[in-house]
Amino acid sequence: MKNNFEEALASLLSEIKPDYPKKLFSAMEYAVTSGGKRIRPTLCFLSADFCKVGRDEALPIALAIELIHSYSLIHDDLPCMDNDRVRRGKPTVHVAFGEATALLAGDALLNLAYEKLFSAANEHPEFLPACKLIADCAGGAGMIGGQAMEFENETFSEEDLFVLDRKKTGMLIKCAILAPALLSGSPKKISALSSFSDYAGLAFQLADDLIDEKKEEKTSFVTVCGKERTEETLRSLRKKAQISLAKWPEENKDLLNFFDQLAFRNN
Amino acid sequence: MKNNFEEALASLLSEIKPDYPKKLFSAMEYAVTSGGKRIRPTLCFLSADFCKVGRDEALPIALAIELIHSYSLIHDDLPCMDNDRVRRGKPTVHVAFGEATALLAGDALLNLAYEKLFSAANEHPEFLPACKLIADCAGGAGMIGGQAMEFENETFSEEDLFVLDRKKTGMLIKCAILAPALLSGSPKKISALSSFSDYAGLAFQLADDLIDEKKEEKTSFVTVCGKERTEETLRSLRKKAQISLAKWPEENKDLLNFFDQLAFRNN
Repeated sequence: MKNNFEEALASLLSEIKPDYPKKLFSAMEYAVTSGGKRIRPTLCFLSADFCKVGRDEALPIALAIELIHSYSLIHDDLPCMDNDRVRRGKPTVHVAFGEATALLAGDALLNLAYEKLFSAANEHPEFLPACKLIADCAGGAGMIGGQAMEFENETFSEEDLFVLDRKKTGMLIKCAILAPALLSGSPKKISALSSFSDYAGLAFQLADDLIDEKKEEKTSFVTVCGKERTEETLRSLRKKAQISLAKWPEENKDLLNFFDQLAFRNN
Repeated sequence: MKNNFEEALASLLSEIKPDYPKKLFSAMEYAVTSGGKRIRPTLCFLSADFCKVGRDEALPIALAIELIHSYSLIHDDLPCMDNDRVRRGKPTVHVAFGEATALLAGDALLNLAYEKLFSAANEHPEFLPACKLIADCAGGAGMIGGQAMEFENETFSEEDLFVLDRKKTGMLIKCAILAPALLSGSPKKISALSSFSDYAGLAFQLADDLIDEKKEEKTSFVTVCGKERTEETLRSLRKKAQISLAKWPEENKDLLNFFDQLAFRNN
């Protein structure tokens, strides 16, 4: 699975390379090929399997969501945002290529995601509901809204943090799971995956918060509600995730296993 | 015409407002309602008229392109790019709202453009070729590529500047003219508008360079090739623009008049 995705990504990059300014392209390539765990593409493919949608069909969705994820990391790392100089053990994009190029590489990756989705929809209009879901989840009412909340709010209640986490991290996880299902999943499976994807998105962020526990300057569920309450919430989310897919005891295994990998990981 | 556009924009803004973080929304609203000349929407509507496409049909295209234009200005003005503190006589978005919010407001406007285009295409799949054109023109091989070239190149030949101007300014002008034609223009008109839009985009940028003549720190066609050569090129572009639409002596008037307004303006 991973190889198919990496091949498709490499082929997309070589397709666009001749038409892009060199440094812009290099920054984009650096961002999308420097060791991401491909969690969202994996979720896309597992959800496609669950819905009996071909992985090849789900590929444009997996690519677009990973491009959107990569752009959001570049912009998040910028000095005016989190001002992070290292990601995945390497210099962040603005450290390696300068701020202007990092800004534009982020813009270009976001735009490229939609270029590819319009291409896919232009050939197969049945992609449109999935495309619309992805754009809605990535936007100001979704992921970008979550990024903005972090800068706007001065204090956070437990409820605020649920909203923030659901938007900032959860929305892209949600569409990674739900968009492939919209291609040809049954209404029952779509509805079940909609709940499952909410639990998975939140669980992923809470697990992140536990890993980042020591960075005390960061407002997170762990710093506000404590480690114990976070772990308790994670266990409750796992229970809900299992119930949401319980009607399909054979087909749900890979998704539920991956849920556990996300929710109870160490890095 | 302008009122319809402004009404549709106001209605879009009030539709999204409840779901957006307050400051993010305010920054977006500030950016799109602070005195832009609405050149791209005007071109959309004139091109729609020329192709006998309803202006209402062209409205989602006009909105999306203006949102993309607004985001590009916010990001262009940021300290790591042009570091401009004033635009249209008002503080730029990052001066008024801070850099993080400006960055995210730009991201959200770009994303919103595509959310609206996917909505339009979801209802009317015949929008898809126009949507794809817009995304391609706005991306790393188009407008963003032009923005990047400005930072990558150290010296510019006349040829480089043609490429830069065609990408940075020309591509969005091009799709403003060509996208509505793709809705239901005849192949002859689409082909004619494709040429016309190239000339219009370049002419718009050269006119801009003449207006900005005194900002010597900026690399432009005027600073590299001189004022006389720029004016000569503008006259030649006007001639070509007239020839490109000469087959339609009645219907071409508004577009050619607007070309003159763009190419021979003072501000």
